[in-house]
Amino acid sequence: MKVAVIGTTGYGGGELIRILHNHPIFQIHSIHSTRDEMPITEEFPHLEDIFEDSLKKVDPKVIAEEADVVFLATPSGVSGKLAEAFYDKDIQVVDLSGDLRIKNQEEYQYWYKHDPVNTEILTSAVYGLSEWNREEIKKANIIANPGCYPTAVLLGLAPVVKGNLSESTGIIIDAKSGVSGAGKTLSKANAFAEMNDNFRIYKVNQHQHIPEIEQQLRFWDDSISPITFSTHLLPITRGIMATMYVELKEDLDTSQIIELYQETYVNHPFVRVRKEGRFPSIKEVAGSNYCDIGLQVDKRTGRLTIVSVIDNLMKGAAGQAVQNANLMNGIDEKAGLNFIPIYP
Amino acid sequence: MKVAVIGTTGYGGGELIRILHNHPIFQIHSIHSTRDEMPITEEFPHLEDIFEDSLKKVDPKVIAEEADVVFLATPSGVSGKLAEAFYDKDIQVVDLSGDLRIKNQEEYQYWYKHDPVNTEILTSAVYGLSEWNREEIKKANIIANPGCYPTAVLLGLAPVVKGNLSESTGIIIDAKSGVSGAGKTLSKANAFAEMNDNFRIYKVNQHQHIPEIEQQLRFWDDSISPITFSTHLLPITRGIMATMYVELKEDLDTSQIIELYQETYVNHPFVRVRKEGRFPSIKEVAGSNYCDIGLQVDKRTGRLTIVSVIDNLMKGAAGQAVQNANLMNGIDEKAGLNFIPIYP
Amino acid sequence: MKVAVIGTTGYGGGELIRILHNHPIFQIHSIHSTRDEMPITEEFPHLEDIFEDSLKKVDPKVIAEEADVVFLATPSGVSGKLAEAFYDKDIQVVDLSGDLRIKNQEEYQYWYKHDPVNTEILTSAVYGLSEWNREEIKKANIIANPGCYPTAVLLGLAPVVKGNLSESTGIIIDAKSGVSGAGKTLSKANAFAEMNDNFRIYKVNQHQHIPEIEQQLRFWDDSISPITFSTHLLPITRGIMATMYVELKEDLDTSQIIELYQETYVNHPFVRVRKEGRFPSIKEVAGSNYCDIGLQVDKRTGRLTIVSVIDNLMKGAAGQAVQNANLMNGIDEKAGLNFIPIYP
Amino acid sequence: MKVAVIGTTGYGGGELIRILHNHPIFQIHSIHSTRDEMPITEEFPHLEDIFEDSLKKVDPKVIAEEADVVFLATPSGVSGKLAEAFYDKDIQVVDLSGDLRIKNQEEYQYWYKHDPVNTEILTSAVYGLSEWNREEIKKANIIANPGCYPTAVLLGLAPVVKGNLSESTGIIIDAKSGVSGAGKTLSKANAFAEMNDNFRIYKVNQHQHIPEIEQQLRFWDDSISPITFSTHLLPITRGIMATMYVELKEDLDTSQIIELYQETYVNHPFVRVRKEGRFPSIKEVAGSNYCDIGLQVDKRTGRLTIVSVIDNLMKGAAGQAVQNANLMNGIDEKAGLNFIPIYP
Repeated sequence: MKVAVIGTTGYGGGELIRILHNHPIFQIHSIHSTRDEMPITEEFPHLEDIFEDSLKKVDPKVIAEEADVVFLATPSGVSGKLAEAFYDKDIQVVDLSGDLRIKNQEEYQYWYKHDPVNTEILTSAVYGLSEWNREEIKKANIIANPGCYPTAVLLGLAPVVKGNLSESTGIIIDAKSGVSGAGKTLSKANAFAEMNDNFRIYKVNQHQHIPEIEQQLRFWDDSISPITFSTHLLPITRGIMATMYVELKEDLDTSQIIELYQETYVNHPFVRVRKEGRFPSIKEVAGSNYCDIGLQVDKRTGRLTIVSVIDNLMKGAAGQAVQNANLMNGIDEKAGLNFIPIYP
Repeated sequence: MKVAVIGTTGYGGGELIRILHNHPIFQIHSIHSTRDEMPITEEFPHLEDIFEDSLKKVDPKVIAEEADVVFLATPSGVSGKLAEAFYDKDIQVVDLSGDLRIKNQEEYQYWYKHDPVNTEILTSAVYGLSEWNREEIKKANIIANPGCYPTAVLLGLAPVVKGNLSESTGIIIDAKSGVSGAGKTLSKANAFAEMNDNFRIYKVNQHQHIPEIEQQLRFWDDSISPITFSTHLLPITRGIMATMYVELKEDLDTSQIIELYQETYVNHPFVRVRKEGRFPSIKEVAGSNYCDIGLQVDKRTGRLTIVSVIDNLMKGAAGQAVQNANLMNGIDEKAGLNFIPIYP
Repeated sequence: MKVAVIGTTGYGGGELIRILHNHPIFQIHSIHSTRDEMPITEEFPHLEDIFEDSLKKVDPKVIAEEADVVFLATPSGVSGKLAEAFYDKDIQVVDLSGDLRIKNQEEYQYWYKHDPVNTEILTSAVYGLSEWNREEIKKANIIANPGCYPTAVLLGLAPVVKGNLSESTGIIIDAKSGVSGAGKTLSKANAFAEMNDNFRIYKVNQHQHIPEIEQQLRFWDDSISPITFSTHLLPITRGIMATMYVELKEDLDTSQIIELYQETYVNHPFVRVRKEGRFPSIKEVAGSNYCDIGLQVDKRTGRLTIVSVIDNLMKGAAGQAVQNANLMNGIDEKAGLNFIPIYP
Repeated sequence: MKVAVIGTTGYGGGELIRILHNHPIFQIHSIHSTRDEMPITEEFPHLEDIFEDSLKKVDPKVIAEEADVVFLATPSGVSGKLAEAFYDKDIQVVDLSGDLRIKNQEEYQYWYKHDPVNTEILTSAVYGLSEWNREEIKKANIIANPGCYPTAVLLGLAPVVKGNLSESTGIIIDAKSGVSGAGKTLSKANAFAEMNDNFRIYKVNQHQHIPEIEQQLRFWDDSISPITFSTHLLPITRGIMATMYVELKEDLDTSQIIELYQETYVNHPFVRVRKEGRFPSIKEVAGSNYCDIGLQVDKRTGRLTIVSVIDNLMKGAAGQAVQNANLMNGIDEKAGLNFIPIYP
């Protein structure tokens, strides 16, 4: 099957190439960017001798004729327009931006400051949280690939929220991300001398991933109150850890919670639940599509602490995008994603 | 005035030398360690030509005769014994370990797994949170210098807890520390290849600083319930950020909270409260004795987010120790501590 | 084909598992360590659900009966003894230590401070610099896998030294390595707080890789004088850069040198020569088996600057070991090694 | 005495404030930038409550009337013009850029790609290598403050080059710098995700500090041939290490060389020579004005390895600038510079 990648020069685009170049079924047919004609190795010298295609301009008509799947690794605002251009064409679309995720158009406009795409496309676009929307994804033609923070958060919260074990108020999420999550756009916040040996909090309770998380939590349990959501920048390249605090409705032991999680994810190869007393660190998933989860109930407070880690460019972006494309096409969801975490 | 430092070869001891060597009143009379006779430059080559004293063995009788103040930068378990040895002698003691902080002996034993020191010494030892125990510190002969996490946490929580603005349940503290906080003892967790480009959670709800924080919070408001306290290791050398979540009793604006904090700390030169919309990053206090605080009320949840940052070796250890020694001796509390944060 | 790995809990051992677990021909039959019976996931939690074998004790007789190839990822001193134990058995041996590399026993003893292995084994052991000893490797039963520094250095120097373009005196090598090169043994030099935001030189002109480099250079050109070799520790996890300075015998242009290198390595898939004006950075090979080379002639001095980068755990250890095992068994040398560098 | 700082919002400017704010003689009278009227705390929040002046526009006439010394922390190209504007005014000028360093105008133009300043000013400007130009600096009105690399390199080479112990050909300098050396201008090379866990070489034999180094070396020994000079970017914030290789004319022991260096620098408080077998790491000077030097003669090659480390923002920029201003004004050269390296 032939795939096209638009927005190839960003970190998400580079990661898509790393995955798709060795994929057993998908073959990279063409890569696209506004900077057409440039060999990709000008931007990514690490691809020399491996994959040296030149970027082409973005012509949705041509792309749809030639490819079976198109990945949009383009920024919010751009992706929405491309999704519209591809909508009536015979091609599967996996969008890595936030443009198709928020179903409520007003809410999108409030958090993203762009015009939303039209209702029809929003309705068609299936939220690509692979482990939880599997059946819809299999039938979908358009995937709204989840954000990096929402992926870590939702995989971590799903069993207690769906299982109705969490008080509806009181979900607090303290999330930390590596700098690649901010993409390649230069900014003072991303400059080496500013972030090295540093740690900062940003967008306190104002991150655009808040409505995405709440939308899905309420889909599982419509009584869920607004969440508290803090995002921090770690002086690392890749990886997210979400530390989450939940008030339990009942007096449960850590072992019971862990059992629930292990049962929930037993058939999901990319979610790994740590045994009692163990918590994952970010390095344990680096370069891979895994989401690792650690859990502990504090008997002193009745609160559950959930730790969820992913590689933001893999399970938080390109990895899950390929996982979804696999599902859409009846391919083993692990195809092309057998990356063992790179350690150390 | 003459000071002695015991436990000089650790990071806390090194930082005490960095401060005391240029102090306008205190003069380093002697440095001590179990590794006596070694020049300190063998352990700290950065001190060459600056301060080249040799370590002496620890003889409390001699030290008490020769020095006016002794700093104990020794590990928990060792410090308690030294405090006992110095108790009946004519010397001021500032202990940087946790041995004198927990007034309840059973609680000490539970969290520290050592035998506690005797009640008389525990009662004499004043908890050295400089900004809040100033009057007692001025009269003290023994100081239990606060832990690094408790310093960041308590300075951040004090105004709302003392002001009775926080619900007694629901205080959640998500704390992150640089690796120097773990001291110089080699461990896999502190190895470069294990921590670089990594981030890990540890001692979830089991950190020995929990009873220290709760003891002080209950001193201010005895209705405070057990806290939720998570500690994480950052891939940085120095610095702590505590991100704290508090349920407000009333509907307050961010600006009202900030005003309260600014008024509270107006006469405290080492606490700086950021204006609305700003939060401190760790680098903004690195190498200095400052504690910087940022605040935001989330109207969607009625929750207050408090961000408090310190340099764990300065305000979280050696800096506050000298600040306390200044106060004990009627010296300007800023003496020797005019370090401007080193940026970048 | 069945392979065994001894010394599995080190970084080299972990990397062998990362490669071999997905290898199309080799299958990990057993893993061994002095810490037998422990599941490998106790040491490497990132392998959970992927590869969960338990370590077995080292019984050369059993290993040789069951496996076709054994990888020794054991320290110098241990490897030599294991090589002796396997010597008369029916199994291929790939040793990642320095024990079989130095053919002159006195020289080995001088640099390694261990007793050398016997002459017969030393003579049998083929130096596994894959690109340059290909034919001997194909026929070998024992491989002395090259050191990390020598791999980067020799691939960078080979074309000019073999081509007789370098003055015999005056080769200067300024090498820099990530901390994983020092292995997992805890030391002050490897502690996070000591190496983070730091850079240090070590073993100036005393590194045990000097005789290995000189032995091979003199094999190519026996007039080569002693080299100057400095090694530095970089605050990164993986990767080596060797910056090398060579006096050219003739007045050559950068383009001529680059052409020579490109021709030399045209059939060697893991060596990539950058075009004029470009130099590789370490990240461009991270996680992969590539060695990337950049070149420049300085007309002001007549000196050639050669920059060679590798991932020390891959092309500098486990990657080249598997490449050699592929060659020994008539398998495509790229088998199992199609890792695209992980960027960023 | 009153000082003014122009170009205050860069890293060099910030470091000047860190030094001058606590200086016993100099007082910061005004700070200047093209971004006038902004409080400096907008750019440097770490200065809150410490130093909160607003930036003023650059009016040389007013500055010269009000201040005694002006520091130009402005980029190359801007500094030269300011030096011209201040030339006929009654104020001392210390320029941190490269504009006044290269006395040969053609050479300046070749390496800097700007028009040079006029000959009269170039002739007046004294090269501020404090340890070696002390007498001229004391009488100077304009200082061309040395570059960061030249400071580390020249302090390391001076004793052997002035002592005529080095062969005139064959000086090779392999220099490594932290990222702050590139200043605050955003670039892909300085982005966190690009430099973290990475190491790169740049401007091979093309760095604009080459003519500055050669000019001074030839001033000491006019037979010195062109140098080989490589610059690398380290994933650290501050610090430079220059590893230098020199062919010795005579057969000397390491101890003799070290003795020469120790004697040479005995009266220079900011240069520290390590004893035999020790080499400085970058952290050992971080945040301070020290230059630390380690030395070793390799008897196998007759070559001397010199290792010189500085903090590029201190001895390599703002620290040496203040040291020079001290000398110009008959103040103790250490005034305001008693920073102990911050370790770890």
